[in-house]
Amino acid sequence: MEMPSFVQILDFIGTFAFAISGIRLASAKRFDWFGAYIVGLATAIGGGTIRDVLLDVPPVWMTDSFYLLCTGFSLLFVIIFGKYLIHLNNTFFLFDSIGLALFTVVGFDKSMALGYPFWVSIIMGSITGAAGGVLRDVFINEIPLIFRKEIYAMACVVGGLVYWMCLKSGMENYLSQIIGGTTVFLTRILAVKYHVTLPILKGDESGNEHHLIN
Amino acid sequence: MEMPSFVQILDFIGTFAFAISGIRLASAKRFDWFGAYIVGLATAIGGGTIRDVLLDVPPVWMTDSFYLLCTGFSLLFVIIFGKYLIHLNNTFFLFDSIGLALFTVVGFDKSMALGYPFWVSIIMGSITGAAGGVLRDVFINEIPLIFRKEIYAMACVVGGLVYWMCLKSGMENYLSQIIGGTTVFLTRILAVKYHVTLPILKGDESGNEHHLIN
Amino acid sequence: MEMPSFVQILDFIGTFAFAISGIRLASAKRFDWFGAYIVGLATAIGGGTIRDVLLDVPPVWMTDSFYLLCTGFSLLFVIIFGKYLIHLNNTFFLFDSIGLALFTVVGFDKSMALGYPFWVSIIMGSITGAAGGVLRDVFINEIPLIFRKEIYAMACVVGGLVYWMCLKSGMENYLSQIIGGTTVFLTRILAVKYHVTLPILKGDESGNEHHLIN
Repeated sequence: MEMPSFVQILDFIGTFAFAISGIRLASAKRFDWFGAYIVGLATAIGGGTIRDVLLDVPPVWMTDSFYLLCTGFSLLFVIIFGKYLIHLNNTFFLFDSIGLALFTVVGFDKSMALGYPFWVSIIMGSITGAAGGVLRDVFINEIPLIFRKEIYAMACVVGGLVYWMCLKSGMENYLSQIIGGTTVFLTRILAVKYHVTLPILKGDESGNEHHLIN
Repeated sequence: MEMPSFVQILDFIGTFAFAISGIRLASAKRFDWFGAYIVGLATAIGGGTIRDVLLDVPPVWMTDSFYLLCTGFSLLFVIIFGKYLIHLNNTFFLFDSIGLALFTVVGFDKSMALGYPFWVSIIMGSITGAAGGVLRDVFINEIPLIFRKEIYAMACVVGGLVYWMCLKSGMENYLSQIIGGTTVFLTRILAVKYHVTLPILKGDESGNEHHLIN
Repeated sequence: MEMPSFVQILDFIGTFAFAISGIRLASAKRFDWFGAYIVGLATAIGGGTIRDVLLDVPPVWMTDSFYLLCTGFSLLFVIIFGKYLIHLNNTFFLFDSIGLALFTVVGFDKSMALGYPFWVSIIMGSITGAAGGVLRDVFINEIPLIFRKEIYAMACVVGGLVYWMCLKSGMENYLSQIIGGTTVFLTRILAVKYHVTLPILKGDESGNEHHLIN
């Protein structure tokens, strides 16, 4: 980790919030401590791991034990403060949005640095931010939340596009990162605050009966 | 893309049909546009991506934006023609079978070119053809269709075997590809038309109660 | 395969038991033969495959057809002896525990040999032993068993720790492997025999309602 310390703090906040989200959902399904830890870990590092496998580089958590320890801390936190967590929902939501913003920027950067075009980088940013939540929902056997209810991964896509346009327009890397990340953060926050959602795909109820031929 | 243009047309037809199948099933589950796009994309490129990760080569869609655009086109198609799609079921079925055949052949070829034995290549062909549908069903939280109902991946295995036997017997690459692909296509079409299915595994209902010891 | 023949026997026993566990659960869900084979295969080789993808080395089953053949043998076994398998539950449990122990040791070794630190190796050992079962449960659309009910992956973690401490204390590789594997085996057996389980995470029932902001 050669990142500056402000980014490390954001990384801790994001990882903590992502892990907490997995652990709480696992708790609602009566998972044991081990299962909850794994779901928390998958939420926190799943997106980055899928990204790194696709980019063919070693997953970050295999070279830095920070993410495993941070998830352990999150588990402890839920074990101790379980019943009171509901009062922290707004805080967790803010932390989660910070994580989403940071992870998107980190995933975008990593792909650009490896020479991929901007549209691959935007996808990788979105995977870094949102795929952990999909993995979490697969593990707890629910339909992934981000496919149905909320502007979540879409905020990553929007932020990635803004980030890229900043770079394109000749802006400094550092500034572009801040603007891109802030866009993810604000898109997410405002979408939830003002109940902005994407349209639901109209019920083609015949979808289940495909593959008929006579 | 250095493939000849006839293959490109088949590739479009197959990708379109695979994406449509994912998007329609997502629609039946009331996913939003973004979720439907992701499920469509996973159906279309999931198999090839798993294959490329296993073969340790870059996933095709990361070097060619065709698949992302084609899935976007499929989403638009469902949004516009949603209610009328049921009348196109037979067309989609044909397109899907074309895709299955092409993807199987492409996956087989790629593995052979990397020096893998024929049985790995047959598996990779089948993964290319069928694993996207498994990923789709995991995302919409259903038991994968191909495990229970239909000759689907089995058509890939049969076609892969025929393809390999053609090559073995000294036939031209080009001809072997056509015969292999046609075998996948016909196996799939005929199995559905004549309701040919694999036997169901007899109910060892005790399966759930494993791991007892006294 | 340059492993000595005793390890090969354990490998067969473990692969057989893992595949049987997948095939029986698939059977309880009325999968067809092909679906059951795939679920059996995923159970047997899923953990090793995920490990090898993370370690960026070729998955073992792609260079050795043993695992595919062994899974085929397991399917045949269930087809023929389906109804009588319930009487073999204790045997399968023992075989499964042997597999768990062996796979953990193999996964740990492989990671250490690639130069990873001990904590990555313990995770890789646990993934090798337990991730196939998670994949199995995702395919049959159930919440992964190991997250809720039993000491399973935890036995891999404990055994991996013991293995590493043996190595650390200067013990011979060979002996450390046996002690590490035996620890996995005994932890698993004794936990089931004496109904030792991990604590359930207390119901933070609000887990589902996260992401509220006002």
